[in-house]
Amino acid sequence: MQLGMIGLGRMGANIVRRLMRDGHECVVFDVNADAVTTLAGEGATGSGSYAELAAQLKAPRAIWLMIPAGLTGQVVDEVAKVLEPGDIIIDGGNSNYRDDVRRAAKLKDAGIHYVDIGTSGGVFGLDRGYCLMVGGPDEAFARIEPVLRTIAPGEQGIPRTPGREGALTPEELGYLHCGPSGAGHFVKMVHNGIEYGVMAALAEGLNILDHADAGLDQAEHSAEVAPLEEPEFYQFTIDTPKVAELWRRGSVISSWLLDLTAAALESNPTLDGLAGRVSDSGEGRWTVKAAVDTGVPAPVLAASLFERFASRGEDHYANQLLSAMRLQFGGHQELPAGDVLEAGGAKSESTP
Amino acid sequence: MQLGMIGLGRMGANIVRRLMRDGHECVVFDVNADAVTTLAGEGATGSGSYAELAAQLKAPRAIWLMIPAGLTGQVVDEVAKVLEPGDIIIDGGNSNYRDDVRRAAKLKDAGIHYVDIGTSGGVFGLDRGYCLMVGGPDEAFARIEPVLRTIAPGEQGIPRTPGREGALTPEELGYLHCGPSGAGHFVKMVHNGIEYGVMAALAEGLNILDHADAGLDQAEHSAEVAPLEEPEFYQFTIDTPKVAELWRRGSVISSWLLDLTAAALESNPTLDGLAGRVSDSGEGRWTVKAAVDTGVPAPVLAASLFERFASRGEDHYANQLLSAMRLQFGGHQELPAGDVLEAGGAKSESTP
Amino acid sequence: MQLGMIGLGRMGANIVRRLMRDGHECVVFDVNADAVTTLAGEGATGSGSYAELAAQLKAPRAIWLMIPAGLTGQVVDEVAKVLEPGDIIIDGGNSNYRDDVRRAAKLKDAGIHYVDIGTSGGVFGLDRGYCLMVGGPDEAFARIEPVLRTIAPGEQGIPRTPGREGALTPEELGYLHCGPSGAGHFVKMVHNGIEYGVMAALAEGLNILDHADAGLDQAEHSAEVAPLEEPEFYQFTIDTPKVAELWRRGSVISSWLLDLTAAALESNPTLDGLAGRVSDSGEGRWTVKAAVDTGVPAPVLAASLFERFASRGEDHYANQLLSAMRLQFGGHQELPAGDVLEAGGAKSESTP
Amino acid sequence: MQLGMIGLGRMGANIVRRLMRDGHECVVFDVNADAVTTLAGEGATGSGSYAELAAQLKAPRAIWLMIPAGLTGQVVDEVAKVLEPGDIIIDGGNSNYRDDVRRAAKLKDAGIHYVDIGTSGGVFGLDRGYCLMVGGPDEAFARIEPVLRTIAPGEQGIPRTPGREGALTPEELGYLHCGPSGAGHFVKMVHNGIEYGVMAALAEGLNILDHADAGLDQAEHSAEVAPLEEPEFYQFTIDTPKVAELWRRGSVISSWLLDLTAAALESNPTLDGLAGRVSDSGEGRWTVKAAVDTGVPAPVLAASLFERFASRGEDHYANQLLSAMRLQFGGHQELPAGDVLEAGGAKSESTP
Repeated sequence: MQLGMIGLGRMGANIVRRLMRDGHECVVFDVNADAVTTLAGEGATGSGSYAELAAQLKAPRAIWLMIPAGLTGQVVDEVAKVLEPGDIIIDGGNSNYRDDVRRAAKLKDAGIHYVDIGTSGGVFGLDRGYCLMVGGPDEAFARIEPVLRTIAPGEQGIPRTPGREGALTPEELGYLHCGPSGAGHFVKMVHNGIEYGVMAALAEGLNILDHADAGLDQAEHSAEVAPLEEPEFYQFTIDTPKVAELWRRGSVISSWLLDLTAAALESNPTLDGLAGRVSDSGEGRWTVKAAVDTGVPAPVLAASLFERFASRGEDHYANQLLSAMRLQFGGHQELPAGDVLEAGGAKSESTP
Repeated sequence: MQLGMIGLGRMGANIVRRLMRDGHECVVFDVNADAVTTLAGEGATGSGSYAELAAQLKAPRAIWLMIPAGLTGQVVDEVAKVLEPGDIIIDGGNSNYRDDVRRAAKLKDAGIHYVDIGTSGGVFGLDRGYCLMVGGPDEAFARIEPVLRTIAPGEQGIPRTPGREGALTPEELGYLHCGPSGAGHFVKMVHNGIEYGVMAALAEGLNILDHADAGLDQAEHSAEVAPLEEPEFYQFTIDTPKVAELWRRGSVISSWLLDLTAAALESNPTLDGLAGRVSDSGEGRWTVKAAVDTGVPAPVLAASLFERFASRGEDHYANQLLSAMRLQFGGHQELPAGDVLEAGGAKSESTP
Repeated sequence: MQLGMIGLGRMGANIVRRLMRDGHECVVFDVNADAVTTLAGEGATGSGSYAELAAQLKAPRAIWLMIPAGLTGQVVDEVAKVLEPGDIIIDGGNSNYRDDVRRAAKLKDAGIHYVDIGTSGGVFGLDRGYCLMVGGPDEAFARIEPVLRTIAPGEQGIPRTPGREGALTPEELGYLHCGPSGAGHFVKMVHNGIEYGVMAALAEGLNILDHADAGLDQAEHSAEVAPLEEPEFYQFTIDTPKVAELWRRGSVISSWLLDLTAAALESNPTLDGLAGRVSDSGEGRWTVKAAVDTGVPAPVLAASLFERFASRGEDHYANQLLSAMRLQFGGHQELPAGDVLEAGGAKSESTP
Repeated sequence: MQLGMIGLGRMGANIVRRLMRDGHECVVFDVNADAVTTLAGEGATGSGSYAELAAQLKAPRAIWLMIPAGLTGQVVDEVAKVLEPGDIIIDGGNSNYRDDVRRAAKLKDAGIHYVDIGTSGGVFGLDRGYCLMVGGPDEAFARIEPVLRTIAPGEQGIPRTPGREGALTPEELGYLHCGPSGAGHFVKMVHNGIEYGVMAALAEGLNILDHADAGLDQAEHSAEVAPLEEPEFYQFTIDTPKVAELWRRGSVISSWLLDLTAAALESNPTLDGLAGRVSDSGEGRWTVKAAVDTGVPAPVLAASLFERFASRGEDHYANQLLSAMRLQFGGHQELPAGDVLEAGGAKSESTP
């Protein structure tokens, strides 16, 4: 079928390529004319404006936006102006599902369908396909299903879940109509929230392995912290890159994120050059807020988010306060020297 | 090569079968004579006692124990009595790595090698192979490597990690010599700790999806808890079994645990009959204690463990105390009736 | 000075009483005429409508609303209609500070000042005074300061913070102008968020004390969970009511919440009749959301909130999923019977 | 009565002073002869060795050790050599309660009583008294109760818990016989665990207040993290030192730790010179391990401990791994530059 694509960054361009490979016809636009030219050179129909894009598509149109979430609201408004009742706008970016709910209501008045699609796949999507979580009206979903089927990963040779029989369902092909407008990005949001938790579980575990040699080097622990009580049990120098690779086969925690961890450690075993300041995007935050709103306990997902905040130093003031309190009640100086035992007398370190 | 196996439960028996399929010779023992008979019928050499088992193996022997962790100490002692210097005892069960450290030291005096192997794979291991995390002396590891190679999953058609070249290394075949005695079970312990975290991330996320309809049914929230502030954003009825299946293809969180989740939800979509009292075994606990000992932050792994404790009601006394405090400072009755607004006056609910 | 009070529930009535004791003149209203009659009998001027209330106050007026947060928006609108430019509306309830920001902007157009006051003190406020966190314009704050000074606890005989000299500042008397509109309820919100954390710390700790006898009764642990490894260290039967009382004197954690805990345990040592379903109000939730919005790590505050959710069973679906996964990978039945060791063979309980 | 004191550091010396003020007779020893001379000058009987100390005490003796926990085992052994059956050794330091259990059993064979006392009070104990949590045999507790009563804070003018009548009980005077050997340090351990949680709750909350101005300065958020979505709600510049002072009067969270926080912020409002590397001593760690052992959920206490670990950079490797994974799946560079939007195209930041 025919699809318009606005936004030819890495993901938008690759989706277009994946569609064209499967015989779909794409009309494309980007504010960067070079990006349009490149795709046009690969078979797409280029356009220089939203209006031109719309003009080159037969009604009822379907136009996919693959642009930064911060621009989506404005672009939706502008694109809607060149569309007709019955046309479909698809937001394949990382919008907050709340914006979808609002936008869908607004466009409905103009007779335009709004479909939100959470798109997972990262830099590997061109070959691997993109997992698609779709929200919107039934009619619109049905109309764009042919392109979804192409963009999605398909069966991928993944063993079928026991008990499933008959024709493959959409979810087995990597796309799903999750519900009305907003449902797609809601499911994608939670997907990313889970992703944070899984990443943190792997990182914390490997960090423990990395510290399994704590008993070999006691000097650094002597002043600032409680001494290691049983150093004989922490005498292991674990090769974490090899362990990550090992777990890829046959272990319970084999996963794509583990594959990536192994790849990261293979390419940079000592993680040189990484400061460990971990960014976060909106979805992890929105997931925790949704958990709070709906009264769902999510301590793991929240902890994984907060670890990222702390990695960027956002715990600094809190930590200063803790040191300040300790100084008050126990006279504990923050510097290692402050923890040195008093000669012959009581170390008051932990008494309070 | 030749291997003795003590303990023919599901895992022990399947490891024997996997070994025999690949041409290894197995001598087996179990306190349950029927289990011995069954394996003998499949080609193993049965034995009726540790002594008989030892007698049927050529020195230097290698004997694998696949028995409950609680019995391992005693069985190791008894088996050691029928062995000679140079023989190897392998503990493939779920021992605490600290016991390995102690046992290895003890057996070393008798000239017997002790190898601890963390074995992952569950009920699928017969076909899928077992991921093997090995601790012990180099010499012993080298001697038993042929059987490890058979028991491990092997390459399994899993794409090679980018950057790796040349002959496949042990970790790429699913087994790894992690370090001296105890290192195998240490790595397995952390593996299970991560497993808890990943499971919790999935469960919390799917629980949020399950509550995405909170705005559709406000009645239940009216008394006991804060009202949902923006019900219009929680109007989704998400089909979590389908979402779990969807994420198996192309998503960032695709993983074996997700495969199992999809399978669980396929076979029992409403989770009928599950009370949600989640057991835990030692490894998750030991992981958290190791993190505490070595000063490694592990909030996600700890939270996932504590959620299991709470699922069994172990938070009950703490929760009673919280209700009791609230009753003290605000006169808040625990029963919903207590939260009803005072007529025309100030609801003191959250004032303190 | 003169103050109007709308809402004569427990807190509103007690504030009026505290004001009258100190010579202030109060004009009061409540939808419940009996509440008005009662206060009128104690010296207040009763009124039967907002208009009558306004008419009995000299301009510029100050009217304090002490009503359920859910009604505040509507009442503010209605009261504003009977006021004049220069008058002040005070919201002393538990509004979300975001509503304050919106309402203040709206009222500003009408020349009416809006002051939000977070009021802490609970059922003890009549005698103990109320801690007042105030947000709003400087001018309005200055005008109502006389009543704030009366409602606040005052010095209360609490030792002065070392280093403070000269006249007592407002914060030393228990009220503070925290910033512009919304700042009062923002500070109150965080106060309650901290309250959740402190309560949880006390409850978790006392729960550990309550389990210090775990080694005395091993039977219950045998099937469902990992066995207690060192029962000899958990042989204590701690009298938690006595410990709570003990800590009130001289310990680092002495606090008003500990006083309440001791009182709760004195009046009901076995916590009979408490189901442990812990309610939560908006402030704890808003605090976590504010932390997420501003990128501040708040794992303790979030965990304390999530514990309350879980106490009400909101973790049920997640826990069912965990049991369902365990059933998949290890064949672990949820029922205790499922954990019984296989005869003579390997217990696969924790192997995966 | 007569008491021997070994260890004349800050706490040991002050306990001796408090005892002498109340008429008790103290015989003292310290490896630092100057410390002995000082106390002798204040009325104590000095001694130059354990033997001399014992010789100057009438049997049955009671000797209090106030020394660093790391030395306690050795000193107990040496002191026991100069004692007789019926004598009492008191460990008032910060020993792990597990060591108490072991030591008590050992000394019992020699007929010597062992009493463990958790002592809380910090630098303020001389005047404020020390909260005493006591473990040991009934007989020994009864014998030393006179000195405990002196060392403890006493009633301190703290209002009696409602419902309590008649003579003041020991716990109302600040000391309590918690159970057999080890129980005293067990209760003290949990006290400190709670202390960590309360401190963290305060620190996290004040950190949120400190970030309430996030909407005033958006620049720093633009690249590395999700943008603040509703800056209009984060426009507050909160004076946290004043808020800490405010909450001391009438608020629900008034507490001694809040008093100390206010004092810390009064003396150093900007927390200059504090790096925020927060030390931890054994008790917080042991508390979490006890929770894990006994299957008690303690997410708040654990999170507060882990925050301290992270404050010292122990999360570094984990954070590097997270950045490395993000680089793998999304091509996200850790540096701010990596988050800049692609020209005209899709920002892939959060898509995976």
